Amino acid sequence: MLVDNLIDEVKKRENSLKIIRDLIKDHGRENLYDLTGLSGGFIANQNDLNLLETYVGPAIFEEDLNKLGKEHLGGERILAVNRTSSGILATILTLLKPDSYLIHFLVEPPSHPSIIKSVEIAKGRYLEFDKMDEFHVVENTSLIVITGSTMDHKVLDEETFKKIITTAHEQNVPVFVDDASGARLRTVIYNQKRAIDLGADLVVTSTDKLMPGPRGGLIAGNADLVDKIKTTAYQFGLEAQPPLIMAIINGLKAFKKESLLRSIEKKERLMKMLNGYSMFEETPTGVMVSKERLKHEINSCGKIDKQVLSKIEKKISSSDLCFIWALILLKNESIITIPAVSMPGASPTVRFDISSKDALNLDMETLHKKIDDSFKKLLDVIKDLDGSKRLLYGD
Amino acid sequence: MLVDNLIDEVKKRENSLKIIRDLIKDHGRENLYDLTGLSGGFIANQNDLNLLETYVGPAIFEEDLNKLGKEHLGGERILAVNRTSSGILATILTLLKPDSYLIHFLVEPPSHPSIIKSVEIAKGRYLEFDKMDEFHVVENTSLIVITGSTMDHKVLDEETFKKIITTAHEQNVPVFVDDASGARLRTVIYNQKRAIDLGADLVVTSTDKLMPGPRGGLIAGNADLVDKIKTTAYQFGLEAQPPLIMAIINGLKAFKKESLLRSIEKKERLMKMLNGYSMFEETPTGVMVSKERLKHEINSCGKIDKQVLSKIEKKISSSDLCFIWALILLKNESIITIPAVSMPGASPTVRFDISSKDALNLDMETLHKKIDDSFKKLLDVIKDLDGSKRLLYGD
Repeated sequence: MLVDNLIDEVKKRENSLKIIRDLIKDHGRENLYDLTGLSGGFIANQNDLNLLETYVGPAIFEEDLNKLGKEHLGGERILAVNRTSSGILATILTLLKPDSYLIHFLVEPPSHPSIIKSVEIAKGRYLEFDKMDEFHVVENTSLIVITGSTMDHKVLDEETFKKIITTAHEQNVPVFVDDASGARLRTVIYNQKRAIDLGADLVVTSTDKLMPGPRGGLIAGNADLVDKIKTTAYQFGLEAQPPLIMAIINGLKAFKKESLLRSIEKKERLMKMLNGYSMFEETPTGVMVSKERLKHEINSCGKIDKQVLSKIEKKISSSDLCFIWALILLKNESIITIPAVSMPGASPTVRFDISSKDALNLDMETLHKKIDDSFKKLLDVIKDLDGSKRLLYGD
Repeated sequence: MLVDNLIDEVKKRENSLKIIRDLIKDHGRENLYDLTGLSGGFIANQNDLNLLETYVGPAIFEEDLNKLGKEHLGGERILAVNRTSSGILATILTLLKPDSYLIHFLVEPPSHPSIIKSVEIAKGRYLEFDKMDEFHVVENTSLIVITGSTMDHKVLDEETFKKIITTAHEQNVPVFVDDASGARLRTVIYNQKRAIDLGADLVVTSTDKLMPGPRGGLIAGNADLVDKIKTTAYQFGLEAQPPLIMAIINGLKAFKKESLLRSIEKKERLMKMLNGYSMFEETPTGVMVSKERLKHEINSCGKIDKQVLSKIEKKISSSDLCFIWALILLKNESIITIPAVSMPGASPTVRFDISSKDALNLDMETLHKKIDDSFKKLLDVIKDLDGSKRLLYGD
């Protein structure tokens, strides 16, 4: 296997970052297409920038943040955090009593690692359900977490949502919704209610997912609970700093349901163009290829003969295939996808997010050609093991 | 006691932020004097801003950050964190083994709350020393923390520094230096060596203390240790986001030893003007009043009669006195000091930092008068308990 530990993944990422640096140096930012769907926006005007000082900045931004945050998420109080993960840590540290249970319901595993890790740190116990008929609140439960939409954009239906919240409240257990992308995915695309409007006590969302905000998190909900969480956040430095708060405000101002919906129809056009392949799956805001499907496409496309294939399989894992393809997309087609730049341990699924800002300057015909060309190139590259290594880690 | 829990402190802070908002609305930013010494800078040009995106930003900034970070702190590897406190949490979570000891040496208590809190979270044990003849490394110690300079700017001498590091390394225990302000205070003003050059394995500094950077933290040291800490930081969202990294880079570029030294001379002039008081102490970059000395000055100035004083003492703690004075300084004199806007748990010491950017537009004669007037006002206000409450929390 070419990439088979965390160190390899970091090396792969740093090689990608170097390639990105060079591409921008040579061709400028405008010819680079970040389709990760995670490109945090950072909208700022000079006046904003002049106010960016530790103690004065927040004074100015706090008011806007509360107004816009409540419009977006509902709730009585708003708290901006450095990342959704740091908001989850602050919330669990504040509300999960030692040795008590945190019950997590999500429509489909795997759950986001930050939840389980935070439970460990809070010295609590973790119980997970993904089937409603199995769901129940055990004795000594102090917090229930609902994941509104999973990392793979699977969305929880509103009925289940309400049932869980009702059950929780019957036992006087507060409900915290991890609505990282769901706050927009569920509401705009699936016409669901906001988590708070469904009765949740707390919700957190990622300000860079499906909206033109920076990487960061926004917590909303019950004033008393948010105040307690805020206290914990300040103690450990989990809160968003003024530059982030400013960009979150401007991201919320710039967020338009229409543009999110427009990207859906662009995606559907792209999906049609790609019907020659069997590996593509639709996501709410783009298309994706899992490692299994990529491997299957390569094995079944008939462009590489069986013997060569079996040789390749011994050396190159299905994850490796995703990483190599991502590097080709980056180097040859100037397209950034998650596997090229991901943090260690992230899913190697290759995603093309059409809601990304850069997708606006990219017509689907061009993207279709870039995908075709990069896949043909992939079929060549994997025949050469050393070439594949050089591609992944640089020369 | 008026302010006697973390929630009160948050409410007090939010009232101060509201007052700051109103002052800026009515009189403009230029008539507000942030003398906290913690006014994070946010230097950015349009080109920087265009690059601020989750995955593209770091690619560009990573290189500069490593170069400038190493120049400033030494070490093999650099990690930017959201706040010094989040860097301390990441480091302790990574290096402190459960049930093992973290030994903390600082020249004078109190130690920064984030260290003890992080030890609790890491399920470790805490041992603190402030006298070298008592210092010793107990069995089962996995991390030693040295505070280079305290929150009150007391600096540890280089000899003690070296002795502790030698002792620690004899027992193969890594040394982590909390050099929040010390990284500049110790080196520029006391001509001490950088923590890493003194043999420390890791150091963290605050990028907004005594340098024109944003509120944030910078960790430097042994490559292997920093990589491990980085992994923890990413898991919980403790790392600095691209906008912060960019501002940290520009802050490091803009940091000048000369301007720090110039502020020393202004401070000495102010200190002379204040010799009518017994409560002021000199700090390396300004003057400060501890809660004990403030209380003593009030009790000994003879402006309030004994009976009234004893009534006041029953209701108003010495910390409250600092908070009330800070609110008067803010509301009546447009001076921001830490107790008005501090995060919960911070020291209530009232500090006037002359190295602050805003101190450049403030001559020492004016500052002297503002301090006189606000102290007279304080002597009035504390006679009225309800008035004091209104001042702290707003109407």
